[in-house]
Amino acid sequence: MELYFSPLACSMATRIALYEAGADAKFIEVDPKTKQVLADGADYFTVNPLGLVPAIRTADGAIVTENAAILQHVAEHVWNEKLSPDEQIKLRQWLSFIGTEIHRGLLAPLLDPKIPIEARKYLVTKGQSRLDYLNRYLEGREFVLERFSVADAYLATVLNWTRAIPEIDLANWPAVKSYHAAMKQRPSIAKALTEELALYQAEQARHKAA
Amino acid sequence: MELYFSPLACSMATRIALYEAGADAKFIEVDPKTKQVLADGADYFTVNPLGLVPAIRTADGAIVTENAAILQHVAEHVWNEKLSPDEQIKLRQWLSFIGTEIHRGLLAPLLDPKIPIEARKYLVTKGQSRLDYLNRYLEGREFVLERFSVADAYLATVLNWTRAIPEIDLANWPAVKSYHAAMKQRPSIAKALTEELALYQAEQARHKAA
Repeated sequence: MELYFSPLACSMATRIALYEAGADAKFIEVDPKTKQVLADGADYFTVNPLGLVPAIRTADGAIVTENAAILQHVAEHVWNEKLSPDEQIKLRQWLSFIGTEIHRGLLAPLLDPKIPIEARKYLVTKGQSRLDYLNRYLEGREFVLERFSVADAYLATVLNWTRAIPEIDLANWPAVKSYHAAMKQRPSIAKALTEELALYQAEQARHKAA
Repeated sequence: MELYFSPLACSMATRIALYEAGADAKFIEVDPKTKQVLADGADYFTVNPLGLVPAIRTADGAIVTENAAILQHVAEHVWNEKLSPDEQIKLRQWLSFIGTEIHRGLLAPLLDPKIPIEARKYLVTKGQSRLDYLNRYLEGREFVLERFSVADAYLATVLNWTRAIPEIDLANWPAVKSYHAAMKQRPSIAKALTEELALYQAEQARHKAA
């Protein structure tokens, strides 16, 4: 499998999922500004016309985009996970909640340096109830489901962005904060974070020099 | 199965999916303002703590939320659809794209009467590339996948909202416009739209009288 990623972007969830399985994969870095593959300057829009990471190239050569689809693919075909119908529906519910309400509806736009201040305020106000809900849900839980799943890989990845969002201090949602702290200790996540932080710093230096 | 819905909300996608199968279901209307079940005044937050529709109560009594999870459940357990691995991954990719980029990231916030004008402008600008992508994808296609799927039920439902969003005129995306026009002719969708439009008008009259 090949994973197109940018450092610390939501594509890190798939890296974590691959590390969990000790899976062999090729990681292809995409510069989020130029939308070029770092190694050879190839145009990433030819891989994903939206220019968004992640995308994967599966064993049979197909390109797949969208976190929920990619993460379920890794769970089923790399982890070889067999979920009960009840576990499957819960996994899909949580991947959708994280993807729509937390990632796309709240945290990703707040990372955009071009977002107007009025839009920031609106999103933060609307997002409060989602974080409150997540906090109540995570109280007393170690994982999103009954054991570590790709939903944890996804949630840990997007919660990581809050340190760059001044309005969202996880201290206000203590169960979310302690869940995130525990996740960062997990070897697959610690390894992914360390590696991608170094790549992110290199990316920032590159952009500064350009 | 029971479906908690509000008229013309994203829950209509599940109604369409149920009509496609001629499935027996109980439709429970939730007032989006009071968050009460219309029939008996029951508190909807006890069903979904976020107060969002849709939610379903499955045959075995479980509550499930989130469009992507509910629609896949209906496809698998009501339609009894058997997808190839390739079809399944494409369905998940499109449910995720519609849910994150079109529904949650673009159209739903633009329906909120409280959203500030600067936030509207920001979302419309960001959403342009997503609608352009959708338009290119739908050129020459009858359905999102190779045949009618729950992704069409979902996409037709959210595109319906554009008529209440002045900044988004589907005439600028002709393939999206003609796809949507064709979908509205499909019997399951035409029936759902007619029924929910009447319920929506009753809801508006109720709110005005309150």
